[in-house]
Amino acid sequence: MSASSTKTSAGNFFEDFHLGQQIHHATPRTVTVGDVAVYNGIFGPRFAVQSSDTFAAKIGYPRSPIDDLLVFHVVFGKTVPDISLNAVANLGYADCRFLKAVYPGDTLNAVSEVIGLKENSNKKTGIVYVRSRGYAQSGSVVLDYARWVMVRKRDEKAKVAEEKVPELPKSVEPSALGSACPNIDAQAYDATLAGSPYRFGGYKAGDKIDHLAGITVEDAEHMIATRLYQNTARIHFDHYTESKGRFGKRLIYGGHAISLARALSFNGLGNAFHVAAINGGRHVAPLFAGSTVFAWSEVLATAELPGRTSVGALRLRTVATKDRPCADFPLKAGDDYDPAVILDLDYWVLLPR
Amino acid sequence: MSASSTKTSAGNFFEDFHLGQQIHHATPRTVTVGDVAVYNGIFGPRFAVQSSDTFAAKIGYPRSPIDDLLVFHVVFGKTVPDISLNAVANLGYADCRFLKAVYPGDTLNAVSEVIGLKENSNKKTGIVYVRSRGYAQSGSVVLDYARWVMVRKRDEKAKVAEEKVPELPKSVEPSALGSACPNIDAQAYDATLAGSPYRFGGYKAGDKIDHLAGITVEDAEHMIATRLYQNTARIHFDHYTESKGRFGKRLIYGGHAISLARALSFNGLGNAFHVAAINGGRHVAPLFAGSTVFAWSEVLATAELPGRTSVGALRLRTVATKDRPCADFPLKAGDDYDPAVILDLDYWVLLPR
Amino acid sequence: MSASSTKTSAGNFFEDFHLGQQIHHATPRTVTVGDVAVYNGIFGPRFAVQSSDTFAAKIGYPRSPIDDLLVFHVVFGKTVPDISLNAVANLGYADCRFLKAVYPGDTLNAVSEVIGLKENSNKKTGIVYVRSRGYAQSGSVVLDYARWVMVRKRDEKAKVAEEKVPELPKSVEPSALGSACPNIDAQAYDATLAGSPYRFGGYKAGDKIDHLAGITVEDAEHMIATRLYQNTARIHFDHYTESKGRFGKRLIYGGHAISLARALSFNGLGNAFHVAAINGGRHVAPLFAGSTVFAWSEVLATAELPGRTSVGALRLRTVATKDRPCADFPLKAGDDYDPAVILDLDYWVLLPR
Repeated sequence: MSASSTKTSAGNFFEDFHLGQQIHHATPRTVTVGDVAVYNGIFGPRFAVQSSDTFAAKIGYPRSPIDDLLVFHVVFGKTVPDISLNAVANLGYADCRFLKAVYPGDTLNAVSEVIGLKENSNKKTGIVYVRSRGYAQSGSVVLDYARWVMVRKRDEKAKVAEEKVPELPKSVEPSALGSACPNIDAQAYDATLAGSPYRFGGYKAGDKIDHLAGITVEDAEHMIATRLYQNTARIHFDHYTESKGRFGKRLIYGGHAISLARALSFNGLGNAFHVAAINGGRHVAPLFAGSTVFAWSEVLATAELPGRTSVGALRLRTVATKDRPCADFPLKAGDDYDPAVILDLDYWVLLPR
Repeated sequence: MSASSTKTSAGNFFEDFHLGQQIHHATPRTVTVGDVAVYNGIFGPRFAVQSSDTFAAKIGYPRSPIDDLLVFHVVFGKTVPDISLNAVANLGYADCRFLKAVYPGDTLNAVSEVIGLKENSNKKTGIVYVRSRGYAQSGSVVLDYARWVMVRKRDEKAKVAEEKVPELPKSVEPSALGSACPNIDAQAYDATLAGSPYRFGGYKAGDKIDHLAGITVEDAEHMIATRLYQNTARIHFDHYTESKGRFGKRLIYGGHAISLARALSFNGLGNAFHVAAINGGRHVAPLFAGSTVFAWSEVLATAELPGRTSVGALRLRTVATKDRPCADFPLKAGDDYDPAVILDLDYWVLLPR
Repeated sequence: MSASSTKTSAGNFFEDFHLGQQIHHATPRTVTVGDVAVYNGIFGPRFAVQSSDTFAAKIGYPRSPIDDLLVFHVVFGKTVPDISLNAVANLGYADCRFLKAVYPGDTLNAVSEVIGLKENSNKKTGIVYVRSRGYAQSGSVVLDYARWVMVRKRDEKAKVAEEKVPELPKSVEPSALGSACPNIDAQAYDATLAGSPYRFGGYKAGDKIDHLAGITVEDAEHMIATRLYQNTARIHFDHYTESKGRFGKRLIYGGHAISLARALSFNGLGNAFHVAAINGGRHVAPLFAGSTVFAWSEVLATAELPGRTSVGALRLRTVATKDRPCADFPLKAGDDYDPAVILDLDYWVLLPR
């Protein structure tokens, strides 16, 4: 609670969390074709399944589903006021699974459970682990993921509840992939219309792909996108305060880089129509307006899905950089990341076979 | 009429108006979920009723209504080409009532009546008072408000028609509130999902609330919003001309600050789901791109609505500032406004009981 | 193919094209009310037919059609990855006809045929002529146009296929106009609501109209619009690369100026509700963010449409400038264009009679 007011929320601090705590987040959100258009204007994705109702219907979807990452951002946005308003850093994601396709008109809400807590030795901050779930109006879970964030303590002397560091899988098993993807008709999938001749069988572990193009980010763009998700983290929106803060300017929401990298990845991965899971992700360095984002990907693994013959999965590492084209696949510089790298994302996508 | 053309409109000048004049404004406008998404991207409101069809339906709306202020801006925008294209200043609003909920797919148009005229002693300008009404396609009035603007004369020597200064109420009576709000089921209103535990009964006159967060405005954002409303006031869009003008830059549409303040007010007023009326508003100082807007509110009064037990009304004063957080509720500096204040808005909101 | 990757497309070079080649472009795109809203936010058009479902229905449309230029940009955008990713310059358009109204929910895709090829004497570039067609999901052609672009060769020594310079009409015949416009009820067309008293009969060849207002363009705006069309031309998006390139900054998509000029032309041409054809267009000079666009139009001709009594056609020349109001109708300076002119567009519009 802020001293100046008794009805506003200044967010939770580290000592406000306890293991097993269930947090029902505000605000339920109906996603619409309007949200899709704003998202498309900001990122420019070109995957045919999300772009064309006709294409989607031909392969077995009732219509174009909402972009998986838009679903992720909306659910994530709901968790911010309760989980990460006082975060110092968003440390990681794990075990993120897209469980059910979301369509325009569906209403999403989110619930989180505190699954881990670990105070830092400086007693000023601690790490909060949560498992967050996004639900559709039907009650079905559409998204399930773990994340951990470093959160400030309100009071350094505050006692902290029981601590625990949860075990989280390094990656999602292929057998857990695909429930958000209907049993598509791969014959009906028109690769020419989709923009790429390469289906699942065209990729093998070790393939590296430079996605070639770069997109410069403007302050208006990342703020519009981040507000669209109702994400309230102030560091993205308040130049007055941030001009005196850590970076001297507004920081771009980490998910913005993920969506940019995904949109850029169309060139080289045009048939990777569905993000089925995110194994892990690191926001290696901050991104600010004015920078140009580039990306490249490596195929880490290929996997068949048990009992499914129409789609296969690629495990991808997609790396995004700022102000640095990716023809030579920049990643590490010695033990550290190359200073141009901003995102290192490990995820599963589905392609038609 | 411009000298260079005979088919364009340069707007009306003070001497073009006469008492009782009825002006049917162009352009009718169907509002859609697309408009809602753009509005959400620009302002980031989080009131559950407007955000979630499911939430709205549960309490008795057919679906999420269009944000009240988006309705206001669209209707206001229609009046600009006829009323205020040659305005020097937008002086005030009064007796603004939201009379019927608007839903995606509804088509709005607007009609204004000239209710007052007063030439200024310098003979260069005069004050035009209009009552403007927004209509849905059914013919129902959805919005009714008075405003007065200072308008330039085309010709200083022009005779002015009959003058009159209309009497306008200082505030809307509680008995006149609520016709745009269905008879909601307050028990079905889920305050946890809505994001605030404070219902109508939780507030009392004199409560002051700092809304905490700040939002920086970019030129792209306010222009996109203002064009969305088809508001054609050139001072918002034309940097070339304004760079040589009064402010040296584009001025942000006053309604932009109202929508920002309303969105910020969610933190502290999360259940104030409906703006029922605007009693008055002053754009105290101009707002330009690059500034960060903060806001605070005071509860001026609480009121029950005759015959309605599910909702109550708060009369609020919401003050917005630029580049000035509001922990100490900035308002006046001596007889004048604090130089950071840009908006002083007096309005009624409804909350569930 | 890029050296660094085997699955990405770096676009076609001049020697990759051959006469008669059919190119089926990716990505099919369902256009929605969301796209309409983003488009409206970026350009602010006010033509009543596209703005109001009610107005459109009253005169004989099933509902508001998608803005003709939004249809053009979406179809054009599809052709970019195959035709003009390696273009040095977009040289011209001809014989562009809007053949069928497009409505929210329709899905567009595009096919191009190479109709001309001409290598430049420097052997470094050549001109590619294509006829591009946009199709709705029904298979109907909604848009048909020719354009020619100067495209780089990958290899200066590469042999070029058979050359041919196609004959293209200087303008579309009036008899070919109007198939995208239903047989409207001109009596039901409410000119007051539409915002202009001037119907078809109010204009004559030689009329010149200054559209008065100016709109400044921001980088966020043109990038959002151009991504909305899924246009991937890198010069619009990548500041990092362009800062070292020809202009030192991002170039705005030429179609952006067309849409701005069309929106501005409402003031003076408010009843010109449908762009029926584009006879030709030249992007005379580049446009960059920060410039303010103005426009003026001349009526080149008026035409009745065979067998149609409810609408008539105006052939317009609309000229857009940057940082230069158009009260004196700037066009030429000696043999060259006035240096402020950025666009010289020759097109047909329909108005009610």
